[in-house]
Amino acid sequence: MWDVAEELGAMLVFAEHRYYGESMPFGDLSFSDPKHLNYLTSEQALADFAILVQYIKETIKEAKDSPVIAIGGSYGGMLAAWFRMKYPHVVVGALAASAPIWQFENLVPCNEFYKIVTQDFKDGGLGCSQSILNSWAAINRMAETDEGLLSLSKTFHLCNALKTKDDVAMLKSWLIETWTNLAMADYPYAANFLQPLPASPIRVVCKFLKEPGCADKQLLQNIFQAVNVYYNYTGQAQCLNTSETATASLGDLGWGYQACTEMVMPMCTDGVNDMFEPQPWDLHSYSEECFKQWGIRPRESWITTMYGGKNISSHSNIVFSNGGLDPWSSGGVNHNISDTLVAISIPEGAHHLDLRSNNAYDPRSVLLARSLEVDYMKKWIGKSSSKKN
Amino acid sequence: MWDVAEELGAMLVFAEHRYYGESMPFGDLSFSDPKHLNYLTSEQALADFAILVQYIKETIKEAKDSPVIAIGGSYGGMLAAWFRMKYPHVVVGALAASAPIWQFENLVPCNEFYKIVTQDFKDGGLGCSQSILNSWAAINRMAETDEGLLSLSKTFHLCNALKTKDDVAMLKSWLIETWTNLAMADYPYAANFLQPLPASPIRVVCKFLKEPGCADKQLLQNIFQAVNVYYNYTGQAQCLNTSETATASLGDLGWGYQACTEMVMPMCTDGVNDMFEPQPWDLHSYSEECFKQWGIRPRESWITTMYGGKNISSHSNIVFSNGGLDPWSSGGVNHNISDTLVAISIPEGAHHLDLRSNNAYDPRSVLLARSLEVDYMKKWIGKSSSKKN
Repeated sequence: MWDVAEELGAMLVFAEHRYYGESMPFGDLSFSDPKHLNYLTSEQALADFAILVQYIKETIKEAKDSPVIAIGGSYGGMLAAWFRMKYPHVVVGALAASAPIWQFENLVPCNEFYKIVTQDFKDGGLGCSQSILNSWAAINRMAETDEGLLSLSKTFHLCNALKTKDDVAMLKSWLIETWTNLAMADYPYAANFLQPLPASPIRVVCKFLKEPGCADKQLLQNIFQAVNVYYNYTGQAQCLNTSETATASLGDLGWGYQACTEMVMPMCTDGVNDMFEPQPWDLHSYSEECFKQWGIRPRESWITTMYGGKNISSHSNIVFSNGGLDPWSSGGVNHNISDTLVAISIPEGAHHLDLRSNNAYDPRSVLLARSLEVDYMKKWIGKSSSKKN
Repeated sequence: MWDVAEELGAMLVFAEHRYYGESMPFGDLSFSDPKHLNYLTSEQALADFAILVQYIKETIKEAKDSPVIAIGGSYGGMLAAWFRMKYPHVVVGALAASAPIWQFENLVPCNEFYKIVTQDFKDGGLGCSQSILNSWAAINRMAETDEGLLSLSKTFHLCNALKTKDDVAMLKSWLIETWTNLAMADYPYAANFLQPLPASPIRVVCKFLKEPGCADKQLLQNIFQAVNVYYNYTGQAQCLNTSETATASLGDLGWGYQACTEMVMPMCTDGVNDMFEPQPWDLHSYSEECFKQWGIRPRESWITTMYGGKNISSHSNIVFSNGGLDPWSSGGVNHNISDTLVAISIPEGAHHLDLRSNNAYDPRSVLLARSLEVDYMKKWIGKSSSKKN
């Protein structure tokens, strides 16, 4: 985006979302109870951005008459799209990269997300996704005895030895999240999005997962080697901690709360179309978990009511880009809605690859996407697209 | 609207705004303090309507696939317009009658409103607006002595005799509001909008106000006769109460709070272009009053930030109708913004006359407006406009 900003003569403003980073409305009390958390909503965040844009225009002379474009990736991409929908007088358009605005209610099948994760590992190497699929049963068998638990703990170099069934469930969740994160961060060059990772990390990971049919102990040893690519690419980790998945710095806590209020994204697996244990979407138990953790219950249809679900054709000037490798593309806008609500597909892209800086290893499809995106932005701000400036 | 509903085969739903009528979110505590009043905002009201439409579609079979149109007058008209702007996936269009969505910040001159009130009385009869203009000085002179105060109280048949300067100020406010209400309700036939009133009440009122040059006592006696048309058309009132202006049943209290939070509508008079004492717009003292009454202060630019002010061209399917007699037309959308954001002017109309039932005394301009409105509504719901149904 830095390159694009220069091309457009634009100022880039990174606005921090309330309740994330340093933007705590009630300081240390912000996460203390539902009363203090009540102002953590996407609507409030959008209102913040509206006020911020206004403030910038009032205080920075050069910005006064400049058109504004909203840009974001992932949840930030959803916010960018929704900002244009709700505040079209504030932004002339929005680039929503890898924004799963349809990952709500029953707008898309709940198993799509993990099908894409699985496909990434299928494409990563022979036996790869099958190894992961087989690993769950292997873990379950090992977890049946105390001896097996100890062996599992050792195999995975866990900082805290597994003792209970809950510990084992946590190990499995942690593995699922690891595979998912690898799919999101499967960039064609070494990068540090969620963790420092090598180029095309899934291909690297899959080098350890070529023998899905080997014995449990060996299979899990292989799984550890694979996981270790994710957690220990820099060689710093002494042991692995199943309560950390490296997304903490992205505001896990705030997102946890939002996922328990507005951002209810149904997900499910079946072990047939994906490489995970079957797990249907269960709103009831989801709601119970939310109540236990936060003292509140989710409002699963609110986002659709507020932002329109698939019924968004009356809006304009939004580009939705999605990467073919990115599991979040499952809930993305994957077809043009109108001339001014367009979808850009990046077959070789992971999670909002198009928002990253230009890189010599960028695949063709992301270069094309970026140039299309710039064309649209120029159109929105009233600059001709093909001539210089 | 009943007639129109029948023509369109539509169901009419009258949704009560939260904190008005019986819709009290916290029962008797709803108005007890700012904490309980915190949910009285236009945004929350719009969200209620979104949920309501959804609920109706889920529970009434015939409504499931029916397009929905938002209709409202005055504040309800603003809500109708804003509802289409913010929830275009819920309503295919909106009829916003006498909706002063531009009566905020400095979007329109603050003296426009009372200029229109004045014009109505100028047109009501020779000497009429001049009598009212002269009355303020007459009141001030009378108020200088105790004897004068007593005389004033008697002249106006006040329930509570005037004693202090504040009482006199209240009398004048009450008169201003009375003239304003007469302008809003200046319908061409007898009606009961704010009060039961004769047809074209300003013309009736002005019959008493033909001699602006007469002596103070006589002038104020005339003013009383005029005011009495408004307060005592039915002959029931024993005395007049300056703390009541007959808008109580419209939710004066709720509106008072809203005017002190979001709905800050700058108004001013100069005594030259209008028939009132000069009164500049004074946000500071307005804010002080709000703080005294509610413990909160207004956020005078929020509505523009939220709903876009005059920058609304990216929206569609809204008809703004305004009456030439209606002071609120000062803040209304008075010109077409685009092919789908249109303004309808009703020169002979008072406050949302077009939403009232057909009446034999309806002027031509309101008949024309209604037929245009129906044409637009048919277009929005996909019915052809000229053929039967």
